[in-house]
Formats: sequence, structure tokens, C-alpha cells
Amino acid sequence: MKHQHFTIATLGSHSALQILKGAKDEGFKTLLVVTKHTEPFYRRFTFIDDFIVLRALGDVISIEKSLRKRNVILIPHGSFVAYLGKVGNKRLTVPYYGNKKVLDWEADRTLQRRWLTRAGIHQPKQYRPDESIRFPVIVKSFGAAGGSGYFIAANKAGLDKKIKAMKQHKYVIQQYVVGVTCYLHYFYSPLTKSVELMSIDRRYETNADALGRIPLTYQTPSLDPSFVVVGNSPLVLRESLLPEVLAMAERIVSASQKLIDPRGLFGPFCLETIITPDQKFYAMEISCRIVAGTNLFIEGSPYTWLTYNEPMSTGRRIAREIKTAINKNKLALLTG
Amino acid sequence: MKHQHFTIATLGSHSALQILKGAKDEGFKTLLVVTKHTEPFYRRFTFIDDFIVLRALGDVISIEKSLRKRNVILIPHGSFVAYLGKVGNKRLTVPYYGNKKVLDWEADRTLQRRWLTRAGIHQPKQYRPDESIRFPVIVKSFGAAGGSGYFIAANKAGLDKKIKAMKQHKYVIQQYVVGVTCYLHYFYSPLTKSVELMSIDRRYETNADALGRIPLTYQTPSLDPSFVVVGNSPLVLRESLLPEVLAMAERIVSASQKLIDPRGLFGPFCLETIITPDQKFYAMEISCRIVAGTNLFIEGSPYTWLTYNEPMSTGRRIAREIKTAINKNKLALLTG
Amino acid sequence: MKHQHFTIATLGSHSALQILKGAKDEGFKTLLVVTKHTEPFYRRFTFIDDFIVLRALGDVISIEKSLRKRNVILIPHGSFVAYLGKVGNKRLTVPYYGNKKVLDWEADRTLQRRWLTRAGIHQPKQYRPDESIRFPVIVKSFGAAGGSGYFIAANKAGLDKKIKAMKQHKYVIQQYVVGVTCYLHYFYSPLTKSVELMSIDRRYETNADALGRIPLTYQTPSLDPSFVVVGNSPLVLRESLLPEVLAMAERIVSASQKLIDPRGLFGPFCLETIITPDQKFYAMEISCRIVAGTNLFIEGSPYTWLTYNEPMSTGRRIAREIKTAINKNKLALLTG
Repeated sequence: MKHQHFTIATLGSHSALQILKGAKDEGFKTLLVVTKHTEPFYRRFTFIDDFIVLRALGDVISIEKSLRKRNVILIPHGSFVAYLGKVGNKRLTVPYYGNKKVLDWEADRTLQRRWLTRAGIHQPKQYRPDESIRFPVIVKSFGAAGGSGYFIAANKAGLDKKIKAMKQHKYVIQQYVVGVTCYLHYFYSPLTKSVELMSIDRRYETNADALGRIPLTYQTPSLDPSFVVVGNSPLVLRESLLPEVLAMAERIVSASQKLIDPRGLFGPFCLETIITPDQKFYAMEISCRIVAGTNLFIEGSPYTWLTYNEPMSTGRRIAREIKTAINKNKLALLTG
Repeated sequence: MKHQHFTIATLGSHSALQILKGAKDEGFKTLLVVTKHTEPFYRRFTFIDDFIVLRALGDVISIEKSLRKRNVILIPHGSFVAYLGKVGNKRLTVPYYGNKKVLDWEADRTLQRRWLTRAGIHQPKQYRPDESIRFPVIVKSFGAAGGSGYFIAANKAGLDKKIKAMKQHKYVIQQYVVGVTCYLHYFYSPLTKSVELMSIDRRYETNADALGRIPLTYQTPSLDPSFVVVGNSPLVLRESLLPEVLAMAERIVSASQKLIDPRGLFGPFCLETIITPDQKFYAMEISCRIVAGTNLFIEGSPYTWLTYNEPMSTGRRIAREIKTAINKNKLALLTG
Repeated sequence: MKHQHFTIATLGSHSALQILKGAKDEGFKTLLVVTKHTEPFYRRFTFIDDFIVLRALGDVISIEKSLRKRNVILIPHGSFVAYLGKVGNKRLTVPYYGNKKVLDWEADRTLQRRWLTRAGIHQPKQYRPDESIRFPVIVKSFGAAGGSGYFIAANKAGLDKKIKAMKQHKYVIQQYVVGVTCYLHYFYSPLTKSVELMSIDRRYETNADALGRIPLTYQTPSLDPSFVVVGNSPLVLRESLLPEVLAMAERIVSASQKLIDPRGLFGPFCLETIITPDQKFYAMEISCRIVAGTNLFIEGSPYTWLTYNEPMSTGRRIAREIKTAINKNKLALLTG
């Protein structure tokens, strides 16, 4: 079967526009699962061939038969866990791009830390609540999405008070690494066996990114930072850092093949880092799928323009990978 | 008459390059009104066919006969009010892109607030000087352009002192909303009856955007922020915010048709917002014309690349709209 | 000899990818000098035709004969001084793009200041250690690269203590100008005798650009800013500032022709400025070669898209210049 007979589908949120635009550019049919609320917005885009309107995006599980009939390949993005849960993602039986075994390692902060450590990636020091702590620290509740649910503590009293006020009971206490944030977008292809650097962004967080505009004398002690990601802006890195940027990704892929599963991590992923003044990368987290920062680069990034002679978004790169696999009769390699 | 016989003209400042580049790309003749001081700069650009050199840009009123002979359509931008005043803009009799009736509602902060309220847009709380005020607040003098003439006050004493020192006597006192700034660039076409999201930027303000680089111990209490806009940097928003981003613009257009005039607001406009940690947009202001932030996207933005298969700046979108109207014999719909 | 018989070469670092991509796009052969450590990274890029692997990039001096055989034109970038020293650059006998006489004026802060002053460029006030100083100040050691080795002092005691702790004994004490940073990328062609504005960026410095995200109550007095450049983000400027932006560059080129050498400064250069709230540019430094901020614009910048109908990076602009000179038999004009 030719790739034109397949339909690339996803849930209407996060990076759905990029994914389906890329799929259409590569010659696929496209389908979007939406709610009544978001349907009018997505109807504006002519590269989406077809829509399925559900009461909630999580209900996609109930329409698998219909998806299968249309030869759907589902592309997960950063909101799939929010809508379906880890278990829901695993229960899907329709062809699903990516290795589902990675989900367990990504979702559990302890396993994720073990994986990154194995790959030789620097990470912020982590504390147990009863340990002697060097402040400031940042506390991250498990399962917090988009940076909401994070807080800073400057001392023991502040930490205790805020932990008490949390609804979540699972959290980590991390050293607050002082350095600039940097989100590295990669793509690993098991077909070419190589990692590509797709693009780099910096997240735009409210209100953390607003505080710097308020000088000392106007900041009240009650002004607490929050880290809700609402946007992204583009970035390039110093060229001398790029060999390590790619080497980190190669070590992560390689470690995943040993720790998780022979196929390991593949497709798009993102390493969320802080760069300190000694030019070291500290990884706060890994996202094992397309991240929203790639939405900046619909028409390509400074990095993809170095390697492709055409506009190449991460969404389009996914579609190209699937097309290549179909044409080589290797689609099973890419779905989990 | 075909569109090639029309000349798109504007004043040499603000976004003139984008406007005339876009006009040339769409097949129009182009004309720029400059001063002796700016002429050498603009002469560098080959897409500008012709120049008229005036002693002051505001003198454009005195050459209307000559503009009319050339079949000029004048495209106003953010500096038109600075050079001509609201009254000067209204007095122009040469074809002028946009609805001049909107000028009154845009220029008057009270009317503007009424309009945005009618459209269901969140806005910062506004105070009278004699009211009980929750600090910090930001004070904005009427007619202040580009953010100069704004100041923050942290308490009643600071507010009183600074208001006394102001030269301007008309001003508003607004709640200082703590959140990230976000400038949304739209285009409403009465021909297609739809709103497009053209691009998004973040303004670069001196010295407000420099303060964050100076740590606590080096900030002196005399360090006061100022908000003079000198540049712009690109931004994309979380995809889940986009349906509301477009819905806000649709409500604004619709409210303008009821409050202002049946034609209401059309063409390019910009909503200047702050996004709070609960992911709400607070509008500080609306600009009812092309804004300078669109100058980032001469070759298209992540949003226009989703909908156009060619580079589409806001300047080019204006020219395309006028071309379409001319070809459908509907130019009168677009000029005010 | 036609330009296809020449090889554009550079050292593997800084902006090598941009330079060689641009050279390949213009039809040159390309060669990169790398170390064993960086070779695997650069091997990813198919626009690099050939590699020479050295133990250290500075050893390029020992392979000049081989470079000459390949008709190499060497393009220096911001790391050439770090790898070869000023003296090493001058000793190179292989054709080297740019005017080597400028190196002396660039490397010496006193000469550089004289040059910029002659060009009528505002600069931060400079202090001798025994002078009465208005704080805060920034201290920059001579030869510090990429912003490392800079520090802020808020008062006399802090200044004295930090100067004592410095390893470097040559340094300047400058007024800390409060305003937004802005890096202006230019290209001056002696063939067309005109300056072009290629692009504009803002540097991303660790940890200076991270401090603003930490509010007052979490900043400890020991938190000292550092200014290590690790990346760049794109910027456009207010259009009304652009005539002065270009006029500054023209005055700098013109002053260089009087002060340094009749050929003066040509090719790519960068003015590193701070813009104050009165919209004045204060130059901190000039870089007389391609800067890393141009790496953002592999596919062109908002400014090059106004003047070129094709993607034009600074790297490609260099190659185009050399190609034009070769075709006009004027290559000697461009090499120093």
C-alpha cells in the first residue's frame, strides 16, 4: 500500500497544526480529532482533510475501529498523556507512532533520572525532604504539566510551608540551577540510525519571564514566581556547543536501547536544559515526543536549513520518516 | 482600472518597508513620502518606485492633489497619528486604507475600554486618583507613543509625586498586571469576512527589558523602569490558547460593527496583552492598524506559513486585499 | 580562473557551518579544518566537501602549503583570534578574507575607542581606577572572549576586591549603561561601496539572562552575574532607528579608511550596542568579522529579505562578494 492511502491523525491541541501540515506536505491524507469547542478553530486550516468531533479528546479510544478503517497512523504529542493518561496511550491499538515502552520511563521521574544518568547527562542535585538542603530549590510535583505546579523555596521554612499547601503528594526537590534555559529538539531515525538537531527554543513562562521587568523597589515579598508555559521564542546556540548537544542525544538514544527496549527511543524528543556559566548542560527533563517549541519552525529552523533544501518542520520530518518506512515496507519499525 | 495602475503609498517610517515590499510583490506601483533626512536610507530599497520629499511628513496633506493624480491608495501605519494627528488623518481626502471612524474609538482610552469590554475582553482594573488603590500600578499618559511616558508606582506617595512631575494632565492609573507580554497581530477581511492571525511578537523595551540582567545587590533604589519600545522579537503561543486568541479578535470586530459603524474595524490590528499564570489574556490596548512587530515577518510567520503557500507579511496581506477588492470592483469597501 | 576552482575554507567552530553552506550555495568548493574531537559533528553536513584533521586548530599555520595548492581562500571568524592569536592571523600567508591591518585596532581597547570616537559613536564613560567613579560599573579584562571575565561592581570596595582577585592585569572600567542590548550585523562591500544591514540579534548570556526569573526574595547577595554568551535570539529594530543604524556603520567604515589604512574595514562586522531610553546607541565594542549572532539567519533575515530575492546569510554574502571579485579580477582587493 502506498503512503497516499494512509491517514496521519492526531488530537486537536499542542502541535496538531504542525503535524498535519507536515503530513499534507508529504502527501498523506490528514484527520484531526477535535471537540465541539475547538472545531471552528481547526476548520480554518485547509490542510486538514477530515474531522472527527468527540465530546472529549480522551474518547478517541472509543473510535478506534473507525480509525483503523481509514488506515490511520496516530501521532502522539505533548497533550496525549494529559488527555488519555499513560494507560490510555498504551491501550490504543491503532498504529501509534513511537515506542510505547518509553512512556513508563518518561512518566516516572526516578526512572527518567536513572536513564539520563546512564547516558552521562548532568542533572540538578535532588534532595529528600529530610536531607540537609542547599537553597534555593525548585519543587516539582509529579505529573505537573507545562510548568504549572512548580515552586521555588529559599529556605527550610518556606519549603515546609509550601509542601504542606500542595495538593499533590508526589514531588521532587531539586537544586535551583542558576543558568539560562534551553530546549533542544531532536529527531532520531531508526531508518538512518542518526540523530538530527531540528531546532532550539526558549520557553516563555508566566509570570517567571515577567519578573525581570519589575525592578527591586517595586517587587513585593509576596510576588511568587510561577512557571506556566504559554509560548516559545527561537534560539541558536554557540556552534562550539553543538558537538556536545548531538553527543548527549546519541548517548540518550543508546542508553534507551539498553535500559528500555532494543528499539529504544526514536522519533522526535526534547532535552530541557539549563546552561551554566561554565557552559555545562543540566537536564531538567526529557520529553519523548514532539514538543510545542517546534511550532516556531513551521517553515524550517536555522538547523534544518543546513541539512534540508526545503522547509522541514519536526511535524514534516515525522511524516517523511513514516513515508520512507512505508515505501520500504518497514512501518512496523516505527509504531509501538 | 487594473491594480497595476494604482500606487500604494505611505509615510517613510514605522513599517513603510514592509508595506511597500508587500505592495510591490502584489504588482502595485509604490511611492514613499520621506524627509530629506530619511531619503538616503529609503533610497536603498529597489522595491520603492518613487519618492516625494517633504520638509515634514505631516505636510503630506499639502500634496494630496499630486497623490490623487497618481491613483494613490495611502496605507496608514502606527506613525500616522504622530505625524498628522487624529484630525489630520481624518482631513485626508486621498483614498486611505481603513475605517477612519475607528480613529475616535482608538484614540480615546475611555471609548477604547468600552469597546473592549463590550467584546468581553479582560482588562486591567483602572483607578481614579482618589480611589483606594491596590499597588503596584502603572500610569499611562494619554497619547503617549511607544511606551514612553509610562511609569510604575509602588505606593500612594510615589504615585502622587510622579503625577505632579508629569507634563501631561490626562492619564490613566491601571493595575500593574504581573504576567508576560504578548502582542497579537490580526487581519480582518470584509471580503472574506474572516479574521486571520498573522503573527505574534514580544516588544523589546528600554530599559524595562534590561533590568532583569542586573541582580538585586546592584540595583539602586533610583533605578526606575521605562518602557520605550525599540524593537521586537518573535513568539509563538501554546496551541491550546489559539482558539481564544481568534475568538477575542472576532468579538472585537463584531463589537466594532455595533458600536462604531456598520463597517467596523477591518484590515490589520493588534491586541496588546498580558498573559497571567491562569492563562488569561488581559488587554492593555488595541492598535487599529499595522504594528511594528509585524516587521519581524517580512518572509512570513509560523502562522501565515500554515495558511499561505508563499511568504505573506502583513504588508503584503494588505496589498493582496486591495488587489482583490479592485478586481471585484469593491475598493470603496476598504477606504475610509 | 573561475570561482568554481577556488575552495572556501575556515576553522571548524563559531560560524563555520554558515560560512561553508553559503560558499557551497554560491558554487565554491568547501573545506573545513577540524580536530579529531569535532570531526564527527561536522561530517554530518554534506555541503562540506573536504576535511583536514589537525591536532589543534591553531596548527593550520603548518599546512599552508597544502591550502595554497587547493586555491584556498580562508574566511576568518570570531574564533580565529582565540585559536591563532593576533600574531598568528597576521603570519598566515594563504589568501585571507578581510583587512589584517584592522586586527590591531580591534584587539586594542584604546585604539578601538579612538576609532569609534572618531566615527561619532557614543560609548560608555571609561574610568581609571584612581578616578572618582559613578557606580555601578562593569569591568572587562583585555582579551576576554564571549563575555566571560566580565564583572559588575556596585561600589568602590567591591571594585577593589574583585580587581585584586582577577588573574588578568589589563582591564577597563566602564560605566554600566542601563539599557537593552542590541547587536547590529553589517556588511561593507568595497565593490559596491555600500554598507548593508544584514541582521540583528540579542545575545543569550549565562547567567545574566537567568537572573530576571528569580524574584527579589530568592536572590541571595552572593548571586553574581556572569556574561558568558551561549546563544542568540532574533530581533528587529524600530524602523525610525534604522537610518542612524546605517549611518553609524558608514561613519565607522569611513573613519577606518582614514585611521587604519586606505582600504579600511570591509566585509562583515558587528556593532555591539546598548540602547538607552532616549533611543541612543552606546557601543560597547566592535567585532570586525562575522559574528555568531548571524547563525540565526541561515535562510535570511527580515532585513536581507527586503533586499535579496533569495535566502542570504552573512556567510553566503561573503561568498557572493568573493565570487563577484573573482569574476571582475579583483580578488586582491578583498584579501589581507
